[in-house]
Amino acid sequence: MKEIKVGLIGFGTVGQGLADVLFSQRERLVRRTGMSIKLAGIADHGTLELPERFKDIPLTQDGMQLINDPDIDIIVELIGGIEPAKTLVMQAIAAGKHVVTANKALLSQEGSDIFAAAARQGVEVGFEASVGGGIPVIKVLKEGLVANKILSIMGIMNGTANYILTRMTDEGIAFDEVLKDAQQLGFAEADPTYDIEGIDTAHKLAILMTIAYGTPITHKDIATEGISQIEPMDIELAREFGCRIKLLAISRNHGDHVEARVHPTMVPQDHLLASINGAFNAIHFCGDTVGNILMYGLGAGSIPTGSAVAADVVDIARNINCGSIGRVPALSYLPDQMQARRITPMDELYGPYYFRCTVLDQPGVLAKISGILSKYDISIESVIQKGRKKVGAVPLVIVTHSARESAVSAALAEISGLDSVTAPIVKIRILEAE
Amino acid sequence: MKEIKVGLIGFGTVGQGLADVLFSQRERLVRRTGMSIKLAGIADHGTLELPERFKDIPLTQDGMQLINDPDIDIIVELIGGIEPAKTLVMQAIAAGKHVVTANKALLSQEGSDIFAAAARQGVEVGFEASVGGGIPVIKVLKEGLVANKILSIMGIMNGTANYILTRMTDEGIAFDEVLKDAQQLGFAEADPTYDIEGIDTAHKLAILMTIAYGTPITHKDIATEGISQIEPMDIELAREFGCRIKLLAISRNHGDHVEARVHPTMVPQDHLLASINGAFNAIHFCGDTVGNILMYGLGAGSIPTGSAVAADVVDIARNINCGSIGRVPALSYLPDQMQARRITPMDELYGPYYFRCTVLDQPGVLAKISGILSKYDISIESVIQKGRKKVGAVPLVIVTHSARESAVSAALAEISGLDSVTAPIVKIRILEAE
Repeated sequence: MKEIKVGLIGFGTVGQGLADVLFSQRERLVRRTGMSIKLAGIADHGTLELPERFKDIPLTQDGMQLINDPDIDIIVELIGGIEPAKTLVMQAIAAGKHVVTANKALLSQEGSDIFAAAARQGVEVGFEASVGGGIPVIKVLKEGLVANKILSIMGIMNGTANYILTRMTDEGIAFDEVLKDAQQLGFAEADPTYDIEGIDTAHKLAILMTIAYGTPITHKDIATEGISQIEPMDIELAREFGCRIKLLAISRNHGDHVEARVHPTMVPQDHLLASINGAFNAIHFCGDTVGNILMYGLGAGSIPTGSAVAADVVDIARNINCGSIGRVPALSYLPDQMQARRITPMDELYGPYYFRCTVLDQPGVLAKISGILSKYDISIESVIQKGRKKVGAVPLVIVTHSARESAVSAALAEISGLDSVTAPIVKIRILEAE
Repeated sequence: MKEIKVGLIGFGTVGQGLADVLFSQRERLVRRTGMSIKLAGIADHGTLELPERFKDIPLTQDGMQLINDPDIDIIVELIGGIEPAKTLVMQAIAAGKHVVTANKALLSQEGSDIFAAAARQGVEVGFEASVGGGIPVIKVLKEGLVANKILSIMGIMNGTANYILTRMTDEGIAFDEVLKDAQQLGFAEADPTYDIEGIDTAHKLAILMTIAYGTPITHKDIATEGISQIEPMDIELAREFGCRIKLLAISRNHGDHVEARVHPTMVPQDHLLASINGAFNAIHFCGDTVGNILMYGLGAGSIPTGSAVAADVVDIARNINCGSIGRVPALSYLPDQMQARRITPMDELYGPYYFRCTVLDQPGVLAKISGILSKYDISIESVIQKGRKKVGAVPLVIVTHSARESAVSAALAEISGLDSVTAPIVKIRILEAE
């Protein structure tokens, strides 16, 4: 029986998940592929001893040992971050190894170098696990939806942020409190910045856009806002408007230019994305032939992510076995068919908005604010004023019809300058009906 | 540039969809595959002339002309039904052609002959479009979830039935009325039996089970009930219990035996499947490594289904181009690794139930009925009795805790025999929390 040898660099959460998946599914993979997929070596800086069930697998501190091992066919990089991951991946490619990685930060920032090197060397780069954890979203985009122009991408791509928003929504408690609890429960990392500030989501959106549109995108192209400013009051008000607040990645394909943004979004309750709760992810595409399609599942976690990494390993093993390396281009379009496209500046976008202003409860304040909005051609759909106070400030909430982002920014700057506005204005974009 | 020639047999709704998809995506497919995928011939009994945009494609009345054409690489069968589809598919395989089909009736009934012949001839059989329309659910099962034991399959797999139930739920109108309207609007066929009686759903579940478990299943193995007996009253009562009624395919993998059934089911409102409305489909898997995963999209329609057929054509074209025919086994497990398994008889299943009895409004009726349930070890979760009438019958609704199907059948037979029960009892299974 043909044996495919895998070298695993990085034995953290996902690395251990992959080892467990390859171990538990060993027999199944033989029954499905006719091959034995063997974990032939593990490299990890901090691991001095492997768990009992992996005792037979050689352990090293040095990833280069696996890269230089002529018997190893596939290197799996699961250390995360930019360095030393990039160096190891580039070395593996230079050594003629196929590479599988779950490293969204690396791919969304350094992907062009990596994919160019892999194309030159004629090796595969698998990255299913970089987006949506166990959900096979990359395979669906590259193969299942091959006969589609992707018109839009929308999704909840960070389980930590969605977990926090879900608990804020269900329990009415504040962001900081939920975050602390999530950290204790292991749903958020000690440094949660990437997750809660939308950066991780932007990494993932950059990868999806690149393969969906055949357009190289880095996460730096994506306007990104996180959820740390969301207050329970906004969640409650969203509910009154029939919406839930979700951290969404949104991209639309306008042909010569493409939208790309990550921000908290009010999602109408009857939209499927509003029903995605807890640590789950969901990714929605609109294709010009398939129409609307959504995939839902666990976007993180050791074993689910291991499932996706293992699927990449099997795909490459099949190509090795059949002599069909390069059967599907890594980025879904042939390298010479990738097309750069302009990213639509946020200022040019249109959509409905929710503002929450904190204003003195005085006559004439609403008239002033609505006057400013009108001056910038922003029309109001509804207004809610909460509570009445003789002294001090009250929230004034405005939902607009579709307006241009540049006009909204200018109007809010002017409104912020009013004496009767006593705190920064909270602005949340509302998801437009398709 | 390499050219792959496709012969299309059947120029109905889906056939025209495929032709349109290959036409509109021609350039995109070149940019993604480096190949030209050419529709080289169309065979259709009833078509005397092709639309203008397909004028250059040779048209014949006789599918065998395409099968016998040595230039054609892939035969796409989109005529539906068992014959002449089976003969044509078998002839195509015998002629060494690869085959793509969307024919769920054919595959769920005659699949074993077809796949055995294809394996002998070393040709591919693609059938993505047979389940879930445009949703690439077959690819996900065969490849994306390759490192998973599939523990359960659950889904809404028939758009017509879901459209009817959705309108009954939203508008409170009767089955017959919605069906008539759906037929006028083109959402239901003139003979809707397969759709509304669950047979089409059973075909699809048989295909999914076969590849998910590596166990040959035909739709005859699947206990099937349709939705034509559902009344608005049951939908309204379901709502009171926090549920929606959906026509679900349900299968659970118990190792040595597997559950398989299609029936109207009360789905708790917070389950994602309860939110799938109109003509959409959604298919939910639980895998032992990936956990819960769901795919949602249009389960029918000319162009969406064409998207799935085209994806199969591209997959095979890639295998032709790379010399990697047979890269992924047609049924996801190698032919000699398929394992027959016992189908769990319905009588052995457990779950909660909803009954609606029509009873005379007399003292002691509930005592008699609950006495019978208790005798069969069926415990009641809640009871609703609607209205009060001096003369005539009233509905008495009972929701049970998990009970054995055989006990439920016996109890309902006994209850039906009571003088105070004046109409057949309506029984609807309730989806159990996982």
